[in-house]
Amino acid sequence: MQNQFFPDIPRINYEGPESRNPLAFKFYQPDRKIGDKTMEQHLRFSVAYWHTLTGTGADPFGVGANLRPWLSISDPMEQARARMRACFEILEKLQVPFFCFHDRDIAPEAETLRETNRNLDQIVELTRELIADSGKQLLWGTACLFNHPRYVHGAATSCNADVFAYAAAQVKKAIEVTHYLGGRNYVFWGGREGYDTLLNTDMGLELDNLARFLHMAVDYAAEIGFTGQLLIEPKPKEPTVHQYDSDVESCLNFLRAYNLLDHFKINIEQNHAILAGHTYQHEIHMARINGVLGSMDANEGAYLLGWDTDQMATNIYEAVFALYEVLKAGGLAPGGLNFDAKLRRPSFQPDDIFIGHIAAMDTYARALEIAHNLLGAGEIEDFIAERYRSYREGIGRKIADGSIGFKELELYALEHDRIVNSSGRREMLEAIVNRYL
Amino acid sequence: MQNQFFPDIPRINYEGPESRNPLAFKFYQPDRKIGDKTMEQHLRFSVAYWHTLTGTGADPFGVGANLRPWLSISDPMEQARARMRACFEILEKLQVPFFCFHDRDIAPEAETLRETNRNLDQIVELTRELIADSGKQLLWGTACLFNHPRYVHGAATSCNADVFAYAAAQVKKAIEVTHYLGGRNYVFWGGREGYDTLLNTDMGLELDNLARFLHMAVDYAAEIGFTGQLLIEPKPKEPTVHQYDSDVESCLNFLRAYNLLDHFKINIEQNHAILAGHTYQHEIHMARINGVLGSMDANEGAYLLGWDTDQMATNIYEAVFALYEVLKAGGLAPGGLNFDAKLRRPSFQPDDIFIGHIAAMDTYARALEIAHNLLGAGEIEDFIAERYRSYREGIGRKIADGSIGFKELELYALEHDRIVNSSGRREMLEAIVNRYL
Amino acid sequence: MQNQFFPDIPRINYEGPESRNPLAFKFYQPDRKIGDKTMEQHLRFSVAYWHTLTGTGADPFGVGANLRPWLSISDPMEQARARMRACFEILEKLQVPFFCFHDRDIAPEAETLRETNRNLDQIVELTRELIADSGKQLLWGTACLFNHPRYVHGAATSCNADVFAYAAAQVKKAIEVTHYLGGRNYVFWGGREGYDTLLNTDMGLELDNLARFLHMAVDYAAEIGFTGQLLIEPKPKEPTVHQYDSDVESCLNFLRAYNLLDHFKINIEQNHAILAGHTYQHEIHMARINGVLGSMDANEGAYLLGWDTDQMATNIYEAVFALYEVLKAGGLAPGGLNFDAKLRRPSFQPDDIFIGHIAAMDTYARALEIAHNLLGAGEIEDFIAERYRSYREGIGRKIADGSIGFKELELYALEHDRIVNSSGRREMLEAIVNRYL
Amino acid sequence: MQNQFFPDIPRINYEGPESRNPLAFKFYQPDRKIGDKTMEQHLRFSVAYWHTLTGTGADPFGVGANLRPWLSISDPMEQARARMRACFEILEKLQVPFFCFHDRDIAPEAETLRETNRNLDQIVELTRELIADSGKQLLWGTACLFNHPRYVHGAATSCNADVFAYAAAQVKKAIEVTHYLGGRNYVFWGGREGYDTLLNTDMGLELDNLARFLHMAVDYAAEIGFTGQLLIEPKPKEPTVHQYDSDVESCLNFLRAYNLLDHFKINIEQNHAILAGHTYQHEIHMARINGVLGSMDANEGAYLLGWDTDQMATNIYEAVFALYEVLKAGGLAPGGLNFDAKLRRPSFQPDDIFIGHIAAMDTYARALEIAHNLLGAGEIEDFIAERYRSYREGIGRKIADGSIGFKELELYALEHDRIVNSSGRREMLEAIVNRYL
Repeated sequence: MQNQFFPDIPRINYEGPESRNPLAFKFYQPDRKIGDKTMEQHLRFSVAYWHTLTGTGADPFGVGANLRPWLSISDPMEQARARMRACFEILEKLQVPFFCFHDRDIAPEAETLRETNRNLDQIVELTRELIADSGKQLLWGTACLFNHPRYVHGAATSCNADVFAYAAAQVKKAIEVTHYLGGRNYVFWGGREGYDTLLNTDMGLELDNLARFLHMAVDYAAEIGFTGQLLIEPKPKEPTVHQYDSDVESCLNFLRAYNLLDHFKINIEQNHAILAGHTYQHEIHMARINGVLGSMDANEGAYLLGWDTDQMATNIYEAVFALYEVLKAGGLAPGGLNFDAKLRRPSFQPDDIFIGHIAAMDTYARALEIAHNLLGAGEIEDFIAERYRSYREGIGRKIADGSIGFKELELYALEHDRIVNSSGRREMLEAIVNRYL
Repeated sequence: MQNQFFPDIPRINYEGPESRNPLAFKFYQPDRKIGDKTMEQHLRFSVAYWHTLTGTGADPFGVGANLRPWLSISDPMEQARARMRACFEILEKLQVPFFCFHDRDIAPEAETLRETNRNLDQIVELTRELIADSGKQLLWGTACLFNHPRYVHGAATSCNADVFAYAAAQVKKAIEVTHYLGGRNYVFWGGREGYDTLLNTDMGLELDNLARFLHMAVDYAAEIGFTGQLLIEPKPKEPTVHQYDSDVESCLNFLRAYNLLDHFKINIEQNHAILAGHTYQHEIHMARINGVLGSMDANEGAYLLGWDTDQMATNIYEAVFALYEVLKAGGLAPGGLNFDAKLRRPSFQPDDIFIGHIAAMDTYARALEIAHNLLGAGEIEDFIAERYRSYREGIGRKIADGSIGFKELELYALEHDRIVNSSGRREMLEAIVNRYL
Repeated sequence: MQNQFFPDIPRINYEGPESRNPLAFKFYQPDRKIGDKTMEQHLRFSVAYWHTLTGTGADPFGVGANLRPWLSISDPMEQARARMRACFEILEKLQVPFFCFHDRDIAPEAETLRETNRNLDQIVELTRELIADSGKQLLWGTACLFNHPRYVHGAATSCNADVFAYAAAQVKKAIEVTHYLGGRNYVFWGGREGYDTLLNTDMGLELDNLARFLHMAVDYAAEIGFTGQLLIEPKPKEPTVHQYDSDVESCLNFLRAYNLLDHFKINIEQNHAILAGHTYQHEIHMARINGVLGSMDANEGAYLLGWDTDQMATNIYEAVFALYEVLKAGGLAPGGLNFDAKLRRPSFQPDDIFIGHIAAMDTYARALEIAHNLLGAGEIEDFIAERYRSYREGIGRKIADGSIGFKELELYALEHDRIVNSSGRREMLEAIVNRYL
Repeated sequence: MQNQFFPDIPRINYEGPESRNPLAFKFYQPDRKIGDKTMEQHLRFSVAYWHTLTGTGADPFGVGANLRPWLSISDPMEQARARMRACFEILEKLQVPFFCFHDRDIAPEAETLRETNRNLDQIVELTRELIADSGKQLLWGTACLFNHPRYVHGAATSCNADVFAYAAAQVKKAIEVTHYLGGRNYVFWGGREGYDTLLNTDMGLELDNLARFLHMAVDYAAEIGFTGQLLIEPKPKEPTVHQYDSDVESCLNFLRAYNLLDHFKINIEQNHAILAGHTYQHEIHMARINGVLGSMDANEGAYLLGWDTDQMATNIYEAVFALYEVLKAGGLAPGGLNFDAKLRRPSFQPDDIFIGHIAAMDTYARALEIAHNLLGAGEIEDFIAERYRSYREGIGRKIADGSIGFKELELYALEHDRIVNSSGRREMLEAIVNRYL
């Protein structure tokens, strides 16, 4: 195994819950069977290139604080190559099977688009070799359409048609690259697709353009034979004041309105969910019952802060409820659990990369077992089935099969107006969940 | 004019902005023309029966504090009759042309549904006479499906089919009553249509049932010849933890998914909008460009508090941006501006009813003139038109007419990768708005 | 044991974590030693009379839904007696040693203050007997200064001096009653002590009056020999727009400014903490290091909702971090853990009272063991001690002992400007906490 | 007048409310008398160097987008000189009398602290000349203790004593520089003085150290004869999870606890206020009645977003309520209204600097006149005086002068228990404010 960038970090192994070794798994055992699949097969962990490799630890009040071995390399392309090799060292040492990237994370932008593409091609070749050597896989690729000043007014929703064209060129290339690297999915997160103020915005035109852009992407993916899943990632409030894809339902509405529902699924992030005022579970559940649960950005946000903190997930409840939905959906593949998470700025040391991912992997590993047991025991499912029993018989059945209308229901109600309900038992159900923790 | 309940309150007249008389309009002049319509025709004000007549001033920490002349009447039906007469006295004195109610606001619930309907019928007869005598109109009717314990788990989304039936009977009757009284619209606010916890909820079934319920309502309205507009009113977070109709886009998604989009428009409330994390203008704009702007609940919420405070609207900015959208939509009819607002609990005196409505009516009257001038001057509209000019020519035009795809756009972008953007000018545009204030 | 009101509910016993009996403890064993005290001694659980006995399950959108055996008793005083007896049945069956009440929770208000006091005295006599018979204790008493319309503008901060006087009379009586019943503490929660709008408020006078009121209370308690602890309970935003005692620091500022710091400690509630934008642990920690940690309202709020939901606590993390602070403080006595929590409205059955309390008691019992183990292991404490080591030697020691100023520090810094920091290790520390769960 | 950096921008003159010239004042007339002072004397506007000169337009999702004439200068010191000259061109063209800076805004950091100080000294000399030539003044200086990685764990509250020493050296120098330039105030904003997680924090020690640091600053300022006002600026939530100086009351508590109240006043920012859950007016009012209103950061935040957006102020209500308090305080001097505001990232053109400041200056100019008229008319003040009349006579007077206790008040209350309150009239008062708009 490669040992170039983090020579003091060993391969991370399982040592069990009693271990105090920060560089060991306490719960994650890739080969351990949970039901009919191994932990690795269930969880499909992925490292997010932008936070883990390209991120500097800067925040709005301070410059980058991260100590990273490749930062001493001054040539941008050499640094990019080093970062990619470091990525695979991380994947191997952490036993993580997947990674994700934006085009500009892995290769630097140059003076012209043509040169930028050449930069990208070179790093993609290296990446393809590293994939072949390691067996690691690309969970998804995407294009960064928000960092450069050209995207200051959006990309597909820019008021400037030249920007739309540039974004199209960039996504075309990013889909090609994802396809070339065997990527399982391609993600659209609408970086600056939204507005800052309605005072300067033609929202109708912008939404139409966004739909045109996505249809072009669907067509082009088909043309080159990319059969990976296309995903939209909802997020509200950042970086624009109103992001068009603000939550799962706004995405569903958009996809339905523009006949795109057959082509896209949703990539759900915990922090984006709570910023939209929904629980993580709500968003996953909503996607699941609409058949669009695609993949997940398994990070964690701070409920008392108002922005995307993208923390390493360590809250077992959040992970349990998320995986409960995933298990009910029959799994996430071809999606996965991508750690779209960054270390806190004070965790700036290289070994924090490993410690942070271990914390999140152990959290999800433990949550997987809990969710599996909870679902297997059936206490929750049985309660729900019993609770809605009235729709499987009598008047309820007629309601459910559509054989009845207001007039018949009124006659029924006039004769049955002494209604008896049963407790919703939320406190009992929460205590049941705690028993499985 | 009737002068029974508020003998000390005169008819409220316009006295101009210099008047310090709390019982006079400073801006609202019903007959004053703004563009081609009078203020009254534009604004279509409506009194909300529940807050203004039925409300007691109770809050979660205190019992009712409101002093109201009808509260000394102990017989529930007599009190209900008095309240309805008081409503018309308020409408006349305030020169408000419309009112809105839930079925249970106007008539008390009895032991059986049959008796409850009889109570309702009696008050409806009185109401019909008062309408005929006064020329006042019913903006919309609705059914209260959230107050009684039978609806503790929802109405159309209850886990109990008997509750669904009861709710159907209640809505059937409420549509009939609305029709009988010449109501212009019928509103569905999903009181407790949502969930408290996913641990006890079959969300898929609940949403299916909600759609079945609305289809039945559509069918029944057609059957009895009710041609008023059906409206859905979005609201998040209250009273259930997750309300299904949480914002305009969630409603649109639901209506599209269940083939209901042709039958419903949206009733937008300021306070509900901001609880959902959107501006009032955003929600109205979103409804407008989707062709579903139906009516408005013209109240105001507290941005720093987290629940539906339903305040009398006094913020001129909020009203200007709302009416700007209404003017662009060509007006609200058959909808209107309903004061779904309650006096603060410390404003418990009877004259506060008038003072509060005057405050809101003057706010909207003044905002109407500002919005009209702003739209007429065209400074904002011209800026937007110029900003998106690139989509009416060259490559932008090809994007907009769909005659181009990723490959052509890439060729274009490779030759046009030195992009020049222009400032979005938000600060300038906000200063322009201030000039019209 | 009394078995009058809940004949179907047995005494709740410990059955262990495998039990599926909703009417059994899975974790709480009152006599089990955790360190040098039993669970019961550590946790000092208390039932909140207002939510559990007096509460009806009403919310702003619906009337009371709770089914309670005493609601069929129409005479108010008879109902009050039944409720108090029911309280002791609950305390005994749940093995809860303490309870808390507001004066008006236990006895109904009458026409005059004199009669109201008589009502209260009668129930207090009954309560004293029940205490004597059962060994149960009063954790704290308080006065309800927010429910009645007379308090619409506040009590000690009312603009009406007659209201101040009435409130004084009420608190005088409530302290007497608390003293008579052997209450361990007396709580001031500033119900409506705050303002609705600054447009009608003399905040300076109101704060002065609040301080005068509390000084009078201190004096009167001393005069009658009440040696229980006086407590202030912070809460922001509800029911007034701005509550004066909004969080621990605002209380500390107030107590310092008015020379009250020697007489009061703080009663901290989880839901109030998060509404103020702080974690529960933050507020407890802040109180602890300022020597004012008095007691706790051990409920739980909904992070995504904006009001005081007062849920039964079921989140183990919240309880662990709270009890970690309590253990570091050396315990809570004479304070306790009061379940200032209400069942969700859909949990309206009588047995939900027991199920809900069991859920919370098991949560805190389990958290106690976790917190004890975490503190005992010392992993967190050792990390912190090591992290601040630099203040126990060299330049840091001089800083800490005050023997140095800016000039000396500048000389030092000019020679030591290549600073080396260490990682804050938040991810590692969170993973350590998870190991103890 | 200097015309080097913005050759196309004229001196900004008053053209009146009808002007559509974006480069003219519509309301601000520096010499116009409002009461006994000119607008300039009342408002004491200040440009914030960090946002307006040093800021790049970067945000967490994109690199700097601002086009600025000095960015083409590659030598850091030459660029710093150009920026300072540009600052004075802006001050003169905008007719703004004051500016503010952090040490690192004006001069670049070098390899060693000694060299950094030399860089600073050079720019300070230039600044002193520019001040002398222009008559412009330094409202306040401060030190940037949050941007560099050395401050990753805080400055005065760092766990690393070497960092405390470095921060002390930096503040010592910044006070000297502020003194040398005739600065009227010196501000402490506790950049990273707070914590990320309690799991790694000794909050007691950190607060003690912060107090030690401020005492050293007080002593050193006295030693060198700096008589400017020392100010603390509260802010919650950013950049640390919990900032120690979170709002006015937390600052007051800290200042009281550590005997610093005689030495500090408060610098209040609108956006920080609302992030703390308070209105801007609340924070100013609280500071005013505690005698610590020092200065104001006159920006504006987005109520629906959860971070410090630092927008140019354009909301007239916010400015009116703020200036109403300032007028009641008798003015702000030696403080001022500092535009701690940045242009939205899409407003990246150089002329947006002027357009943005004009928007804010006109907003505050107009608000000044409104607030002056509102206060002069006395409608609000008279209402409040009447509302609290009961404390100037009878029982209320005895309460206010401390000549009465609970026992006398009980006797009074028993005889006066039929309390009559009056309406709080919030709606009327808000309508009155609107009349002055």
